[in-house]
Amino acid sequence: MLQASETLEVDKSDKTIQTDMSVFEQLESEVRSYCRSFPTIFTKAKGYKLWDTQGNEFIDFFAGAGALNYGHNDPHIKQKLLDYIADDGIVHSLDMATSAKERFLERFHEVILKPRGLDYKVMFPGPTGTNTVESALKLARKITGRETVISFTNAFHGMTLGSLSITGNSFKRHGAGVPLNHSVSMPFDNYFDDELDSVTLLERYLEDKGSGLDLPAAIILETVQGEGGINVARFEWLKRIEEVCRRFDILLIIDDVQVGCGRTGPFFSFEPAGIEPDIVCLSKSIGAYGLPLALTLIKPQYDKWAPGEHNGTFRGHNLAFIAATEALRYWETDEFAKETQRKGEKVHQFLKQLVEKYPQLRGEVRGRGLMQGLAVEVEGLADQICKAAFKRGLIMETSGPDSEVVKVMPPLIIDDEGLEKGLSILEKSIQEAIKNL
Amino acid sequence: MLQASETLEVDKSDKTIQTDMSVFEQLESEVRSYCRSFPTIFTKAKGYKLWDTQGNEFIDFFAGAGALNYGHNDPHIKQKLLDYIADDGIVHSLDMATSAKERFLERFHEVILKPRGLDYKVMFPGPTGTNTVESALKLARKITGRETVISFTNAFHGMTLGSLSITGNSFKRHGAGVPLNHSVSMPFDNYFDDELDSVTLLERYLEDKGSGLDLPAAIILETVQGEGGINVARFEWLKRIEEVCRRFDILLIIDDVQVGCGRTGPFFSFEPAGIEPDIVCLSKSIGAYGLPLALTLIKPQYDKWAPGEHNGTFRGHNLAFIAATEALRYWETDEFAKETQRKGEKVHQFLKQLVEKYPQLRGEVRGRGLMQGLAVEVEGLADQICKAAFKRGLIMETSGPDSEVVKVMPPLIIDDEGLEKGLSILEKSIQEAIKNL
Amino acid sequence: MLQASETLEVDKSDKTIQTDMSVFEQLESEVRSYCRSFPTIFTKAKGYKLWDTQGNEFIDFFAGAGALNYGHNDPHIKQKLLDYIADDGIVHSLDMATSAKERFLERFHEVILKPRGLDYKVMFPGPTGTNTVESALKLARKITGRETVISFTNAFHGMTLGSLSITGNSFKRHGAGVPLNHSVSMPFDNYFDDELDSVTLLERYLEDKGSGLDLPAAIILETVQGEGGINVARFEWLKRIEEVCRRFDILLIIDDVQVGCGRTGPFFSFEPAGIEPDIVCLSKSIGAYGLPLALTLIKPQYDKWAPGEHNGTFRGHNLAFIAATEALRYWETDEFAKETQRKGEKVHQFLKQLVEKYPQLRGEVRGRGLMQGLAVEVEGLADQICKAAFKRGLIMETSGPDSEVVKVMPPLIIDDEGLEKGLSILEKSIQEAIKNL
Amino acid sequence: MLQASETLEVDKSDKTIQTDMSVFEQLESEVRSYCRSFPTIFTKAKGYKLWDTQGNEFIDFFAGAGALNYGHNDPHIKQKLLDYIADDGIVHSLDMATSAKERFLERFHEVILKPRGLDYKVMFPGPTGTNTVESALKLARKITGRETVISFTNAFHGMTLGSLSITGNSFKRHGAGVPLNHSVSMPFDNYFDDELDSVTLLERYLEDKGSGLDLPAAIILETVQGEGGINVARFEWLKRIEEVCRRFDILLIIDDVQVGCGRTGPFFSFEPAGIEPDIVCLSKSIGAYGLPLALTLIKPQYDKWAPGEHNGTFRGHNLAFIAATEALRYWETDEFAKETQRKGEKVHQFLKQLVEKYPQLRGEVRGRGLMQGLAVEVEGLADQICKAAFKRGLIMETSGPDSEVVKVMPPLIIDDEGLEKGLSILEKSIQEAIKNL
Repeated sequence: MLQASETLEVDKSDKTIQTDMSVFEQLESEVRSYCRSFPTIFTKAKGYKLWDTQGNEFIDFFAGAGALNYGHNDPHIKQKLLDYIADDGIVHSLDMATSAKERFLERFHEVILKPRGLDYKVMFPGPTGTNTVESALKLARKITGRETVISFTNAFHGMTLGSLSITGNSFKRHGAGVPLNHSVSMPFDNYFDDELDSVTLLERYLEDKGSGLDLPAAIILETVQGEGGINVARFEWLKRIEEVCRRFDILLIIDDVQVGCGRTGPFFSFEPAGIEPDIVCLSKSIGAYGLPLALTLIKPQYDKWAPGEHNGTFRGHNLAFIAATEALRYWETDEFAKETQRKGEKVHQFLKQLVEKYPQLRGEVRGRGLMQGLAVEVEGLADQICKAAFKRGLIMETSGPDSEVVKVMPPLIIDDEGLEKGLSILEKSIQEAIKNL
Repeated sequence: MLQASETLEVDKSDKTIQTDMSVFEQLESEVRSYCRSFPTIFTKAKGYKLWDTQGNEFIDFFAGAGALNYGHNDPHIKQKLLDYIADDGIVHSLDMATSAKERFLERFHEVILKPRGLDYKVMFPGPTGTNTVESALKLARKITGRETVISFTNAFHGMTLGSLSITGNSFKRHGAGVPLNHSVSMPFDNYFDDELDSVTLLERYLEDKGSGLDLPAAIILETVQGEGGINVARFEWLKRIEEVCRRFDILLIIDDVQVGCGRTGPFFSFEPAGIEPDIVCLSKSIGAYGLPLALTLIKPQYDKWAPGEHNGTFRGHNLAFIAATEALRYWETDEFAKETQRKGEKVHQFLKQLVEKYPQLRGEVRGRGLMQGLAVEVEGLADQICKAAFKRGLIMETSGPDSEVVKVMPPLIIDDEGLEKGLSILEKSIQEAIKNL
Repeated sequence: MLQASETLEVDKSDKTIQTDMSVFEQLESEVRSYCRSFPTIFTKAKGYKLWDTQGNEFIDFFAGAGALNYGHNDPHIKQKLLDYIADDGIVHSLDMATSAKERFLERFHEVILKPRGLDYKVMFPGPTGTNTVESALKLARKITGRETVISFTNAFHGMTLGSLSITGNSFKRHGAGVPLNHSVSMPFDNYFDDELDSVTLLERYLEDKGSGLDLPAAIILETVQGEGGINVARFEWLKRIEEVCRRFDILLIIDDVQVGCGRTGPFFSFEPAGIEPDIVCLSKSIGAYGLPLALTLIKPQYDKWAPGEHNGTFRGHNLAFIAATEALRYWETDEFAKETQRKGEKVHQFLKQLVEKYPQLRGEVRGRGLMQGLAVEVEGLADQICKAAFKRGLIMETSGPDSEVVKVMPPLIIDDEGLEKGLSILEKSIQEAIKNL
Repeated sequence: MLQASETLEVDKSDKTIQTDMSVFEQLESEVRSYCRSFPTIFTKAKGYKLWDTQGNEFIDFFAGAGALNYGHNDPHIKQKLLDYIADDGIVHSLDMATSAKERFLERFHEVILKPRGLDYKVMFPGPTGTNTVESALKLARKITGRETVISFTNAFHGMTLGSLSITGNSFKRHGAGVPLNHSVSMPFDNYFDDELDSVTLLERYLEDKGSGLDLPAAIILETVQGEGGINVARFEWLKRIEEVCRRFDILLIIDDVQVGCGRTGPFFSFEPAGIEPDIVCLSKSIGAYGLPLALTLIKPQYDKWAPGEHNGTFRGHNLAFIAATEALRYWETDEFAKETQRKGEKVHQFLKQLVEKYPQLRGEVRGRGLMQGLAVEVEGLADQICKAAFKRGLIMETSGPDSEVVKVMPPLIIDDEGLEKGLSILEKSIQEAIKNL
């Protein structure tokens, strides 16, 4: 097994990237962000690699924030897309029936739902993560006739008003410009380490008629909080949350936008917990090729929508259906999930060694599958590490309320060579960053 | 000029379409809607035509609800997409800089903004109409420190919580499951025919410290309300609304999602009114090929976003940038706008003749450019007409609070032959529908 | 009949009142207001007169903002209070049954409700105007299961959060510190003079499924808006509002807190309009002697409260019951109402003459019964008039969104001599105030 | 010291009270509540005793829910009231200056604030508890520019919309008919017994930028929760809450409406904790004789009201000023506070003996000063005890989310004889109630 820094060659490159970004500075809004962390102009991409206009190569440990689980421009999907476009397959169809959509529905049922014993109706909201979350909230409120939704500390569910109201980050919340209501933020698993059992607290609130908590329509959660700092909920905790939902007749919504589609190994992140959410939100990698798509999965008994009660122009993005259908091949056997777990474990162990080797980091390793994080308690250090990594050709970002967690989130299809190369750059970047402490 | 029914051959086909829709019925959510109005499975499309799996051909008077102004699968755009994909151009990039995005920004500035003397920073929110509206609302509230937004009767701005709160339709609003607040719905132009001057009413509310209207952050409007029933605001009214905004220091947001990108002739629907909105929302046809994309245009002095204060995974949809850039070619001269106006006028006159010829319709013609509507006062009749049209191979939908308006909204690139053929089918469909009155 | 200024002697006094207000300045909050307009320390009062610590006498054209319709310290009520207290009658009893409350309920039924053919259950909320309004809103929302309440421009209903949300005044609204929601402010009668028929606008909003107006739980209004500037709704308008309520199954709430208890002549202000509100809010003069009391009258079919669903500590203020019961004597015949109307008409004519005589006022007379107002279009002039009046021994206040209306609102029991004396001072004050124009 | 049941004679009376309550049943709203628990008609009261129309005598262990700390109809206050009324002292004066108010302000400063080293400006909101709370919330939001207010589980702050939003009880909250927002309910002290340190949890939420808790304007609390079940906050907990407020620049509001004015011994309930709230809410016993009055005490630096920004008709209830001023005599020495503590301790010990003696109660004793509670874990038993007590001539009520706590809350002026008699009846009532278990 790979040992931190010992078996890897040092990447000496330390390229200085100096690109003319003036078009973006002059014409694009100040809201742009990632182009500030990765100040170059990308032009091509393949698998786990990207290239900029100056020919520099980058390893991708970011994977489009979870939208590129199958890597950039997967060759099989690519071919399907080229064929479909060349053949004038219908591209835009609102929510009309198309053969591309029919095929996707069939295959998704056959490859994903049926083998897992899951019975969900598939809804196509607008093709972004926040749209699926908004549709889930609306449905849960409609079904129960209640307004309140419980989310958790450090949750991230999206940037439109409904999703933002159940998102924890104060900077993002403040952007709403109106008070965010109809939601209650309860402590996520391990929020207090071992001091507080957050499910028991939640139960106490629900049992107590004087707690001030109005009976909620739904509880929504990410099994691993990505933006919130790679906080992993224990399976036992998830199970108990599900029991609370059943006991109090509350809908359970799992937001698998970032952590689904195999990011933690299994297709759905909640599978190993043995729970069955009432509604599941999918987006990001479901579009397979970086193409916008979102799904809301609904237990049949809760599919109480009136026709058109939620809609949107780009629900029927047929290129995404083509890509998504092809990507389902990865799920025909267990192989893909197992490989992800193997690689995830490799990263996890590597990060653990780094923590021991570099005590200056005051580090902690968190994660499940190929969603791993290195929490660094020194203020600003995580950003320094990512900055140093970029100069060495590695794309990584931070997460957590204080940007304190370095995220290791490569495309799942990355090979061991790529993984090791990336991890090696990570170690070099740490070495550089802690020099300045 | 085309006379209603006289110069056109009657389409006798009246195809009976019987398609097996069971996959959709079994696997897709009840929320699906257009596939109920157009119960067949589409598979190919080109220009203003679609074909289903049984080889039936349809004329498109719907244009993806305004997302296909350039028609289906425009050959030039298609070629650019094929080349880009074949060449492994980067597809997904969040909001990182890419050469495809750079080119789009430059061209959009050069072809659209500069010649019109407009100075806007370009923001890429999530790639749907509701996402650009949500971003506009957030920004307006941030800049002004106020919460209230004024929208208008029969406005439609989207289905996520912020956009829904400024949408008029009660069925859609009810879907929210929570009260919709921070918004005030004022009467749109001509809401009362000539009885009420709605700008004067608005001014009275704003002047009167006791009116109960809190000073708003913004006024948002569509210059032609599509979903609301093809309600056309007069240029003079728009000009006066802009004056009210200036006088009371309120931001003016134009939602050009459906009616922009040339639908009424000029690129922006507000150009002939001589107004300069502070924020403009674009989506639908900006992606050119039916590809999800949205833009929020912001006057530089209001581009007060902090980096990342609004974000989303699919902001950087490079295929859409490629398509959008290529589509800008249509705007290098005035020709396209003029043609749209000519064809729009042709439709308008045709519809007027229909209204005269078929008084049973109790009809009224509304519209601007190629966004034309035939309001039919007989309950349920508009739906009957569209149903009959579909059987004859014409795709049309209704709008308005009671689905009382038949929308004529073909791709802008439709030729006269297609237009006439479609209008002829429309007349036949009317004849059939009124038979049952 | 009294002619403005001609038959009245001029009050030459122009006392200079200089009182040591330091205790209030040092110990009381900056929120105090009337003590700034009337900067002296009052100590005794009787009928329509007050005296300060320096022995100055004042005529009261303010009547405790409508709380002293029966004047200060009515001798019959006084005696009843003295007897009750001396006899150790129970004073505080929450909502327990007491003989004082029993007697009040019986007499209120007998003297007020029964002869008017009204059938209301009596609820005692907390003893202030805003508490009765809050209870009415809660009940209307409970009964209908809807949230929205329609109020009108320039309405004033109270200062707690629910009442404030249906109040028009922006200064007062702003004080809430949170956005005020679940309410829509429609134009009051004559808001646009004759240009806009506000009932028709309201109906249009309610009929139109796309208007953006959610079906309301209730419409709440004052038949004459006191704080809003003595705006008088026509009986025909009230009748039509009632019809709208019936047609759309909306509850009609009349806030008679200021304008009830005979202020306009009849006990309830809405009697001459021939309407029957579903809920009526009473406070101010119902306590008769300036004692805190409030009533919420509820049609029996809407009395759907669960026991204790709304409560409060001072619901059972027995001194107020004693006073209120005694005051009902005024209502045993029609005499009191007629006298009020006669005096009201006298004031009205006098004000009209003033308007003609002093065109510099750019004045308009508004009012019904003994709630009369002189709207003065010159900025700040109304305040100047009241200030000058105070120096001459007359207590009057302004109302309206810009404090532009001088209110003439004496105790109903004022005699002609007092009335004439007060009006004469008013004219002198006007003469003084317009000198400085 | 008194031993449970041993030294007390048994009251054998067990009167059967059968009163004609038909007037209330026919004419008063269903919302009435206490008259159902105590189904008789009261007519006189003195000290700690009440009498009904049939001459039955009752001992008062309820004290007007805390409004009668000085007992019913205190003879000294009574004389002052009789003199003032007889002398035609001004009764109603809105917020004008009066000599009665001046005297109260001076004496309150002299007797209460100054000796305690407290520096507060006095505001007079509407004369009920909920009005003072609403004014406190408004002010805190105005000063900080923030919306959120933190309250605690099982808090009770009032029944108008603002106060209700920070009240825990779900039955009462539900009555609002609209979602209650801008508030967060955190766990009160000992909410989890020793498992959860609620201040640490609160701090974690405030420190964590991702917690989903928006920085609040204020924290509001009762030091002993009356309606919530006699939950006593430890002084140490209160001290830490104050520290959290200081650290995060949050205003601390103490709602001393029920528990102030000596109920726990000292005038303010928070004195022994050594904290200095920024705003204090007072009502109930401040009016001394059961007369409606409320005060909002504000640190001078936070007295940022504009004149009239909060108002109300009955702010200047001069009878209440007369009564309140006279009652301040009780506070000229320490005697009153000490006596209350002595009697409170007596009750506390007695209740503890009851708990031991009657294990069937599964009882727990809670309380501070003369606010004592016997929590009874057997469902419905607390109500049975109070019912039995009433039949024996003792007025007591329950509190807590499940009405599980028997409250012992006599007037503070009760003598030992009355206290012992009441406690003896309580024991008898327990004996009767548990017979049926």
